[in-house]
Amino acid sequence: MKKTLTYKILEKNLLTGTLKTGNEISVKVNQTLTQDSTGTMVYLQLEAMCIKDIKTDLSVAYIDHNTLQAGFENADDHEFIKSAAAKYGIIYSKPGNGICHQLHLERFGKPGDILIGSDSHTPTCGGLGMLSIGCGGLDVAVGMAKGSYYLKAPKVLNIELIGKLNPWVSAKDIILYILKELTVKGGVGYIVEYSGNGVKELSLTDRATITNMGAELGATTSIFPSDEITKDFLTRQCREKDFITLSADVDAVYDKKIKINLDEIQPMTAIPHSPDNVAQVASLNNAKIDQVAIGSCTNSSYTDLMKVAKILKGKKVHKDVSLVISPGSSNILKMMADNGALGDLIASGARILEAACGPCIGMGQAPKSNAISLRTFNRNFKGRCGTKNADVYLVSPETAAVSSITGYLTDPSTCGDMPKVEIPEKFHVSENYFIYPLKDRNNLKVVMGPNIKPFPINKALTPTLDGKLLLKTGDNITTDDIMPSNAKLLPFRSNIPELSKYCFGTLLDDFHIRATENNGGFVIGGENYGQGSSREHAALVPLYLGVKAVIAKSFARIHKTNLINSGILPFVFKHKDDYKNFDAFDALEINDLHNALDHGLEIILINKTKDITTQLIFEGSLRDIEILKLGGYLNWAKNSDI
Amino acid sequence: MKKTLTYKILEKNLLTGTLKTGNEISVKVNQTLTQDSTGTMVYLQLEAMCIKDIKTDLSVAYIDHNTLQAGFENADDHEFIKSAAAKYGIIYSKPGNGICHQLHLERFGKPGDILIGSDSHTPTCGGLGMLSIGCGGLDVAVGMAKGSYYLKAPKVLNIELIGKLNPWVSAKDIILYILKELTVKGGVGYIVEYSGNGVKELSLTDRATITNMGAELGATTSIFPSDEITKDFLTRQCREKDFITLSADVDAVYDKKIKINLDEIQPMTAIPHSPDNVAQVASLNNAKIDQVAIGSCTNSSYTDLMKVAKILKGKKVHKDVSLVISPGSSNILKMMADNGALGDLIASGARILEAACGPCIGMGQAPKSNAISLRTFNRNFKGRCGTKNADVYLVSPETAAVSSITGYLTDPSTCGDMPKVEIPEKFHVSENYFIYPLKDRNNLKVVMGPNIKPFPINKALTPTLDGKLLLKTGDNITTDDIMPSNAKLLPFRSNIPELSKYCFGTLLDDFHIRATENNGGFVIGGENYGQGSSREHAALVPLYLGVKAVIAKSFARIHKTNLINSGILPFVFKHKDDYKNFDAFDALEINDLHNALDHGLEIILINKTKDITTQLIFEGSLRDIEILKLGGYLNWAKNSDI
Repeated sequence: MKKTLTYKILEKNLLTGTLKTGNEISVKVNQTLTQDSTGTMVYLQLEAMCIKDIKTDLSVAYIDHNTLQAGFENADDHEFIKSAAAKYGIIYSKPGNGICHQLHLERFGKPGDILIGSDSHTPTCGGLGMLSIGCGGLDVAVGMAKGSYYLKAPKVLNIELIGKLNPWVSAKDIILYILKELTVKGGVGYIVEYSGNGVKELSLTDRATITNMGAELGATTSIFPSDEITKDFLTRQCREKDFITLSADVDAVYDKKIKINLDEIQPMTAIPHSPDNVAQVASLNNAKIDQVAIGSCTNSSYTDLMKVAKILKGKKVHKDVSLVISPGSSNILKMMADNGALGDLIASGARILEAACGPCIGMGQAPKSNAISLRTFNRNFKGRCGTKNADVYLVSPETAAVSSITGYLTDPSTCGDMPKVEIPEKFHVSENYFIYPLKDRNNLKVVMGPNIKPFPINKALTPTLDGKLLLKTGDNITTDDIMPSNAKLLPFRSNIPELSKYCFGTLLDDFHIRATENNGGFVIGGENYGQGSSREHAALVPLYLGVKAVIAKSFARIHKTNLINSGILPFVFKHKDDYKNFDAFDALEINDLHNALDHGLEIILINKTKDITTQLIFEGSLRDIEILKLGGYLNWAKNSDI
Repeated sequence: MKKTLTYKILEKNLLTGTLKTGNEISVKVNQTLTQDSTGTMVYLQLEAMCIKDIKTDLSVAYIDHNTLQAGFENADDHEFIKSAAAKYGIIYSKPGNGICHQLHLERFGKPGDILIGSDSHTPTCGGLGMLSIGCGGLDVAVGMAKGSYYLKAPKVLNIELIGKLNPWVSAKDIILYILKELTVKGGVGYIVEYSGNGVKELSLTDRATITNMGAELGATTSIFPSDEITKDFLTRQCREKDFITLSADVDAVYDKKIKINLDEIQPMTAIPHSPDNVAQVASLNNAKIDQVAIGSCTNSSYTDLMKVAKILKGKKVHKDVSLVISPGSSNILKMMADNGALGDLIASGARILEAACGPCIGMGQAPKSNAISLRTFNRNFKGRCGTKNADVYLVSPETAAVSSITGYLTDPSTCGDMPKVEIPEKFHVSENYFIYPLKDRNNLKVVMGPNIKPFPINKALTPTLDGKLLLKTGDNITTDDIMPSNAKLLPFRSNIPELSKYCFGTLLDDFHIRATENNGGFVIGGENYGQGSSREHAALVPLYLGVKAVIAKSFARIHKTNLINSGILPFVFKHKDDYKNFDAFDALEINDLHNALDHGLEIILINKTKDITTQLIFEGSLRDIEILKLGGYLNWAKNSDI
């Protein structure tokens, strides 16, 4: 059978299982990445596994999230991660170096290899033909410790790009267009493979923008073929040795195929508060804006920022607009300083922030009350920007730059000739922000500051679960809802007890009190429960608060895995309509759980308050069941050879 | 009589009173500046005064403190200040433009004029022969509303600089040396005038470094003559029209004179936790460091940062050091981007922050637990950096840059030839971050977000004060102790009720509870009570909590004025030894207060708990007494023509 690109890579790396859609398999992990807000947990878990060396070809610990450092906690986390990296043989990327995905794309990603990362936008490296999967931190810790990663062999969705982009339309508009077509659930269960003549129209970093924001489709990952454009990018990064040609077979069989005509795409924007709530910029022209934020792992490449600089050259940022720019990497910033573009940006009145995630993760630059903020980022969830009543619109760098001058949301295609960016023959590739591990790493110890608390470990599963329904949510609850993330809370990513006070904070203020007073209990969710960021804190915090099971209409992939990894049971309703039969504080019970899981029996949820029973389904592998019975992945991994 | 430079300027601007040392006078205010953390209060006060236009030649509202924007509060404050600036005819400086003092020096300061500013480092413009005084926000509000400022005609301390600086020794080392000689109390009651042949050795920005940090001497301000070097600086800033020659008469009579031989000065450092705790860098060589922070209103000029760039060019920041650089102004950043120096800094591994105060005011970049941090800033008070147990050493840019490479506190004079910086013929002077007020300002309204609360207004003074002694402090209590300032609290500078929870937070956790439970009361302090930052919140918050009087051995000037302006009585002990006769929670009482103040009678403090009486002195003008009797300066100004 003709093979997809995805299955070629999986086959090359297959360790256990039969490579057939839906089967659980394990694959060799070539590379891992972590960032600091999920990374502290990852390295605490690695410590708990008592290993000496990592088993990957290369692992990198980036610091890019908590770079504001309002208190000692962040710098202590950085030091802890630095010391763990040194101890286990991991490359450490100092704060100021830039955003993990942009840096990994520039310096380490390899076509044909497998990368897992504790950040939902890890698929960025899919832009250069690498199978790059965002997953829970524990998966990454085990990936480093054991060199392997378990996943369900995915379905493959082919998106064929045809035609040619209009002037002023770019990669961000393409992925917004696709999000409009497919919605935030459209990619669930799939890896998205791009093909078609339109691929040749896209630069390497354009491709990375598209695979990056494929995370918002709910896809496992997205991937482009590795071709001459890939080779060219790697060559300019002085990494031509990392290049291989790679593409799907011509007649590869896909589980689903769609075709996108690039000619049809206009400048797009995701309007509040979901990345798939997409409209043409032209349809919203003349909305007055207060802030423009350019950067993030989606749109902070050299090419993106150079386009912005060329648009702003000789112009002035509108007096009512705060334009903030966070570059993707120190090397990009260096090149733009040297070629005059950074000077142009400064002269226009832009605010130049450190090369880091910054405002994309609510780490600073919260706009004013009721602001309209245009952002080149990937998520516009309510409150993520730090201001609850602000409206965030996601746009391309072109739309952002042009609008920052006019003061209104402006369709850039009304603005004459599009600026052209030449890619430099050689990218600047200084490595002064990286610390490479020593060969001799004996006697190195990790350094733990006072804010770093042990992560919670679950107990073995009891045959009966009972407790109150602590919360019933609507559809599309994000991990930002379950465990909010903002500048105030990010310093506590390594302190679960402190974080737990803010669990479900966007929905209600007292979840932690409800949970504590009722000795834990159940949560019921709607469709696509747990979408968004990969943060495992959205499972670890409920675990700490005693949540035993989450029952939903459907789950987002990474969060479901994180729940299982934490030993929290993720059930779906057999009949989605049963969702309506529950109210907060109903007394619930599930009996004979071990037996039901082991033998694939129906699981019966008893609503003792309403005196009704409901059929639930557990969708998971035998290994998932083993993990749940042992009380989580860490307990399982310690006892397993994998 | 031959005149000092100070008295020449005071004489030119005199409005009321007789210009004689110790007399209260009022002078015309030519210019004012505010920054955002004190500015919100200033503009609330201006609003309360119901004026139409400001009476100064020029007033500027800078945004440089709260630029991280972790929540909506900061951006709302910015918007409020922007709207107030537009309404009253004030120039607004957008965030990203840089640090108020550096910007004011570059763009607006004028030799021979008087500037008052709601920031204790306003004396920076003394570097170009401007009488530049830091004062409480209310003084600035009244300064704008009425065009005048009251002060006690100061004593003048002459510091004659002779000789020539050694290589690698710079302005920061001079002012640290002077702080060692004079201590943080050495300038109290004085304006410091620099003279001598050594003045010619110093660039304009070197002079500004010295006058800036004269604030740490407790001086009212510091001033240099305006000479060819001043003219040269203003010409390069395209402001030659602002130049006048100005110096003290040759035989001017000073209240005190000291002579400093520049040849004797070596690279210096202020060791934790006071700016006058000064030692030679050489005596501390080889202390391992964790962080280096370069910038702040003391050392962020073009010349300072170019020196740093030249030292770091082709070098690598030590792996264990986080080097952060916050430029003084957008124009400096632009010039350094264009001339390649910024590229050199980035390539070395430096973290480039926004042009703002940043880490100097604890706004980000808190070092790790127990860190040693070298900073080119002006204050190393305990906890100000955001990490309570960190040790901050104040150093020159040269020492900072060299040490960031070695990883140890390093005497730069051991490092070969000192780099030479050429000043550009014309500075970049883009004004794209400034918003100039419109001529027609009718119907403009201020915009107040939900975090902006009215400031507290006191009531008329009662004849009897009684209450508990809420707190007895030691010597040299800073305004950072009275009202701590850090990234967490800065967003609440326009919200006194919220801030009050942290009053005296470095000394104890429950002052606000003590105050509330006892219905307000008294505070007793030691020497130099209220040194440090000019923030009037250190008076407004005690006012809000019901503090009626502060009794100390001595007061820092600005804070004492802020207390009077808030209607809180500042008394000193007639016999300093009586300080020992008090303990927290003693019941205190003062009777017949109006009569005693009006007639200069002795004030008797009754300690009812210990059954003893103590003699107190009120040191203030008749106007101060009027202000106190009316319950503060705002009440007084509303009823006065000045």
